[in-house]
Amino acid sequence: MKNHKALKGALAALVAAATLAGTSGAAFAAEGKQAADLAVHGGAQRIEGVYGNQNAKNVILFIGDGMGDSEITVARDYLHGANGSFDGLDKIGQPSYVGDPNVGTGQYTTFSLGAGIEDKGEPAVTPVTDSAASGSAWATGTKTYNNALDVDAYGKPQLNLTELAKAAGKATGNVTTSEIQDATPAAQMSHSTLRSCYGPQGKTDGSDNNADAQCEPAQLKENGGIGSISEQMLDTRADVTIGGGAKYLHQTVQAGEYAGMTVWEQAEAMGYDTVEKDVDALNALEYTGKPVLALMADGNLQTQFAPSVATKQDPAKDENPIQCAVNPDWLGNKNANGNSASLADMTAKAIDLLEANPNGQSNGFFLQVEGASIDKQDHNANACGQIGETDDLDKAISAALAKVDLSETLIIVTADHAHTSQIVEEQPNYALSTVLESPVDGARITVAYGTSPDQMYANDDAPKFDEVESSMSHTGTQLRIAASGPGAQRVIGLTDQTDNFYTIANALGLAKTSEEIAALSDGADAQLVSDADADTQRVEFSGFDGDAAVSYTVAESGDNGAVIVSSDDIAKSATDPISGVRVRTGQTMSIDLTGKLTEGKSYTVTITGKQSGKVVTKEFQAPADSVSGIVPGESVENPGDSQADGQQSGVAGVLGQTGSAIIAAVVLVAALVSTALALKMVKDRRR
Amino acid sequence: MKNHKALKGALAALVAAATLAGTSGAAFAAEGKQAADLAVHGGAQRIEGVYGNQNAKNVILFIGDGMGDSEITVARDYLHGANGSFDGLDKIGQPSYVGDPNVGTGQYTTFSLGAGIEDKGEPAVTPVTDSAASGSAWATGTKTYNNALDVDAYGKPQLNLTELAKAAGKATGNVTTSEIQDATPAAQMSHSTLRSCYGPQGKTDGSDNNADAQCEPAQLKENGGIGSISEQMLDTRADVTIGGGAKYLHQTVQAGEYAGMTVWEQAEAMGYDTVEKDVDALNALEYTGKPVLALMADGNLQTQFAPSVATKQDPAKDENPIQCAVNPDWLGNKNANGNSASLADMTAKAIDLLEANPNGQSNGFFLQVEGASIDKQDHNANACGQIGETDDLDKAISAALAKVDLSETLIIVTADHAHTSQIVEEQPNYALSTVLESPVDGARITVAYGTSPDQMYANDDAPKFDEVESSMSHTGTQLRIAASGPGAQRVIGLTDQTDNFYTIANALGLAKTSEEIAALSDGADAQLVSDADADTQRVEFSGFDGDAAVSYTVAESGDNGAVIVSSDDIAKSATDPISGVRVRTGQTMSIDLTGKLTEGKSYTVTITGKQSGKVVTKEFQAPADSVSGIVPGESVENPGDSQADGQQSGVAGVLGQTGSAIIAAVVLVAALVSTALALKMVKDRRR
Repeated sequence: MKNHKALKGALAALVAAATLAGTSGAAFAAEGKQAADLAVHGGAQRIEGVYGNQNAKNVILFIGDGMGDSEITVARDYLHGANGSFDGLDKIGQPSYVGDPNVGTGQYTTFSLGAGIEDKGEPAVTPVTDSAASGSAWATGTKTYNNALDVDAYGKPQLNLTELAKAAGKATGNVTTSEIQDATPAAQMSHSTLRSCYGPQGKTDGSDNNADAQCEPAQLKENGGIGSISEQMLDTRADVTIGGGAKYLHQTVQAGEYAGMTVWEQAEAMGYDTVEKDVDALNALEYTGKPVLALMADGNLQTQFAPSVATKQDPAKDENPIQCAVNPDWLGNKNANGNSASLADMTAKAIDLLEANPNGQSNGFFLQVEGASIDKQDHNANACGQIGETDDLDKAISAALAKVDLSETLIIVTADHAHTSQIVEEQPNYALSTVLESPVDGARITVAYGTSPDQMYANDDAPKFDEVESSMSHTGTQLRIAASGPGAQRVIGLTDQTDNFYTIANALGLAKTSEEIAALSDGADAQLVSDADADTQRVEFSGFDGDAAVSYTVAESGDNGAVIVSSDDIAKSATDPISGVRVRTGQTMSIDLTGKLTEGKSYTVTITGKQSGKVVTKEFQAPADSVSGIVPGESVENPGDSQADGQQSGVAGVLGQTGSAIIAAVVLVAALVSTALALKMVKDRRR
Repeated sequence: MKNHKALKGALAALVAAATLAGTSGAAFAAEGKQAADLAVHGGAQRIEGVYGNQNAKNVILFIGDGMGDSEITVARDYLHGANGSFDGLDKIGQPSYVGDPNVGTGQYTTFSLGAGIEDKGEPAVTPVTDSAASGSAWATGTKTYNNALDVDAYGKPQLNLTELAKAAGKATGNVTTSEIQDATPAAQMSHSTLRSCYGPQGKTDGSDNNADAQCEPAQLKENGGIGSISEQMLDTRADVTIGGGAKYLHQTVQAGEYAGMTVWEQAEAMGYDTVEKDVDALNALEYTGKPVLALMADGNLQTQFAPSVATKQDPAKDENPIQCAVNPDWLGNKNANGNSASLADMTAKAIDLLEANPNGQSNGFFLQVEGASIDKQDHNANACGQIGETDDLDKAISAALAKVDLSETLIIVTADHAHTSQIVEEQPNYALSTVLESPVDGARITVAYGTSPDQMYANDDAPKFDEVESSMSHTGTQLRIAASGPGAQRVIGLTDQTDNFYTIANALGLAKTSEEIAALSDGADAQLVSDADADTQRVEFSGFDGDAAVSYTVAESGDNGAVIVSSDDIAKSATDPISGVRVRTGQTMSIDLTGKLTEGKSYTVTITGKQSGKVVTKEFQAPADSVSGIVPGESVENPGDSQADGQQSGVAGVLGQTGSAIIAAVVLVAALVSTALALKMVKDRRR
């Protein structure tokens, strides 16, 4: 049958007949769901429930970006011989290594729910994911469209593992060889409807501003949004953040508290220990109580191996198979001081810092480590590049194995999507290929790249892939996932990428259902404070750990009281879920009221968690006599609050973390009584 | 670095540096071996030892030929939706289905030790296997070169699971949708240095003879060899053999006991219940005590879906994605009598027959089931074809799950090698592609095929893949393996294809080391018998269950006694391991001496197991008075046998199976004392 249209036929009946009697086990939770049901948090889990759960103190998640089984095998064949094995990568999940049942290997599916932002709001099953949708899937447990970061298929923020681990009092880390704003690391620190929204000036080094093209405008701070990926990275405040992308932090913050600073300056102002492209400084880092932000390259980190260039079929390539050469610019090479910054070095440093962190010591840590450029070099049809990056990831896993105890630490190794490279028998006629010779077993390894939708080589006389604008394609095949440590068995069999969120959340005891996550905002509270020796007043609030963003209004009390300040004022659309103020999980945030209050007047502050629906409403009176110190506000009843009889003491200063003590409860709209509201007024000298 | 030659550099030091301190577990047994060491039986095992072993009464091994993770995902996406799951395939290895730890999933490596017979004798690591080398790997535990069947890299036969299961008294079965002589089923029933050696006339329907081109001449019976695949199939005598390839059995046997018959006639003469292309007869089969040979098509069985044809990049394909149509000629369609012969039907029939078999009831069974045409349609860039065949395999697994008890039956599902199809984001520019629309979730699935080393489409005006002689390539990526039942955990982690031999042999308690296998010939014995009422004399022998072939000599006794008959006489090379007489495991075999003995003379018969080295030597005297009945022969001492003092009683008739009682011992050369040798001589009327 050569006519495609003739092939179109009714298959529904045939598919229905696929279910044989006698195999009635309810193996898979996601079975039979349509896209809209898959789009809900947890909707695509295959193994919903508690099978194989165990508690782990720590979780380290290793992601080989684009590291499908083919990429693993290419690298193993070349680096270790076909019968060899990776020292780290192949030991995770390997029973014969640990001699313990706390291991598992399996496959997971990676499909997404839209090819791009054009599908936002209309989820549709999309067989091939990008790194953003996939990173979001395991970071949040929610499927979304390609290019989306930690927002669902409708653009609504979904809390990620880093936020949830922080809410539970754990130390957190995020390490990558890519730009830190790239999708995989970004999925642990930002909610962005477009993955390209790198910084307040978009995707530039600060000399230009293309933010309107790279970001949805509503997300930008100057438009009342929650800000770019780089800005949200600082809000997220992982204890350790290491990667590339330094140049994007030279952009200038466009609005808000840090407007006019570069992002680097904002980081300093927010108390980060920063390292910019200094290998010795990275190696010298020790735990100081401050979060670490170390960006080791302007863009992506250099690869371990110099690139190979795939070319058309040519018998001469079989006669002269190549071997890969070390890239002299790779940061994993030792410098004059004997220091280096391979992924293994960065991983070891991150683990050291997290283990020295009191939160890490007491409560454990969550660390994501990405070998990012397997994907990038696969896109480039660069066999040596992808092999070296797989090696780099493998060594990072070995470094972790050398540092942690698998009886209390769950290590997971997987990828975000598969990729194009294929080990084939002979050079293909049409696709590009590179012929390698393994230095270990001498095998000739022919690697084919044939998936680019665009022109793949410049011309027939001197075919060179790297001279054309072309990129090989991700593939949609299910992926290997491997785990060792408590809870590792949960990866056995067929799971979905979103199951990985639950595997990690279960192991660490994090909030994981929508209800549990929303309940993290149950303890949200607010108070008016003033610096003792300064002329500033602000509302401090905290405890919105079940939210990615809040909106707020401060208005004169009473019906139709004049609004003094509102996050909605500058929001492009106050109903847009990425408008508002980005929540800093476990931290105290503030609304600046300096110069905006009139002595003696009563005001009402209303803060709403945009995801949880939690509402904190407090009324306070600006005292007639402005004195230094804390003046109790009045207790008022919140008319809509059934808990209004309860009274709470206001707490001055930084509020402690509340997430770990939150009990699960569905509280979509709640309000606290404003009691003992701390209020300090001084003269507004700027008036 | 655009010059490939510039990339050549010393990588050995770098590879050596890959081993980080601190990860010292000896995870993998095959580590560091070179090709010659990998070529020995068991040499490529990764998890040598006993981890995860449990005993199973039965093992069913499902092979999806060419069913890599990509092929699985293409079929799942299309047939069940991206979030759906296979009813059978995805349940094997799935903890949430069985609620039991007796499951496992993992990956295994598939490399071979040579690109073809030109590499015989010089094993070299070859990243991409064919179905013959891979089938041999799990059937025998021994890596070999591509195109080799159950011979090692030097051409020496290696016993397969079917032979070893028969030696242990188990029932055996072999089911496929391909020609039964094709590599995967052939690896359970033949030792052939070339996979193309289909029958005594080579690869023809009997109207021609190309055996010299398709077989190594030494293997042909007329040259003193062990015979073609079809002939060895009959020697192997699995209890159930179902597949295609009926036309090759119309070839004429060229030499030996059945010379002049067709292979079908030989099968009848050997006591098989035969079915040729009769669906109703297949369905009507019941256990009768005879082995079943049912070949349902002249060649490969028809596929479930009509073929799709992959074409060049064309935007119109995105506008008109196709759905697959049922092939009206598929045997899985019900016929007028309501009968069908899908792989599920054939699998269910095989299980019924094996469970009705007294050996199966007492000792359990080993059954291999192959879905063969996933590979074949992948070679053809036929997306619908490969999808339908994956569905067919899935339903066969479901059929098995409905019949067996996973507490006593180990089911393994895996593949022999990965294949070319890739799910990509957009149609590739150079590769071929087919754009499908899932009837379940409506997703558009773009499947790319770009690995053919030859021209892929006829011309640019009307590009049609099926009009050119072209074939897509196998790929070398590691594969999914999944198991449920006792011993299933052994597939977790990274294993090699040869580990699968040990997983199955361990579960069934089969001989598995070279020593244990050789020891299966310890009980070999021989005797001279004559039919009571006929004019024939022969030496009957049995118990060479540790061998694939024997050689024999009958000579007049004494120094330099004249040789009466010898297998070496007609052997092209007596030292060739595929010369000699094919052993029929667990059966009694004979050497015809009719008309060759002289009354009163003493003769010595020497039978040598060509793999075990076991030598059986017996002396007998042709009595002066020829009478009907058994005449005791003389006891003689075998000078080289330290066990010569021990005396054994000769057993007339069919010798029982000995394999299951054999103890492991290294007996490379041994000889039994000839005692109470049964001898009956009658006049040779043909003289």
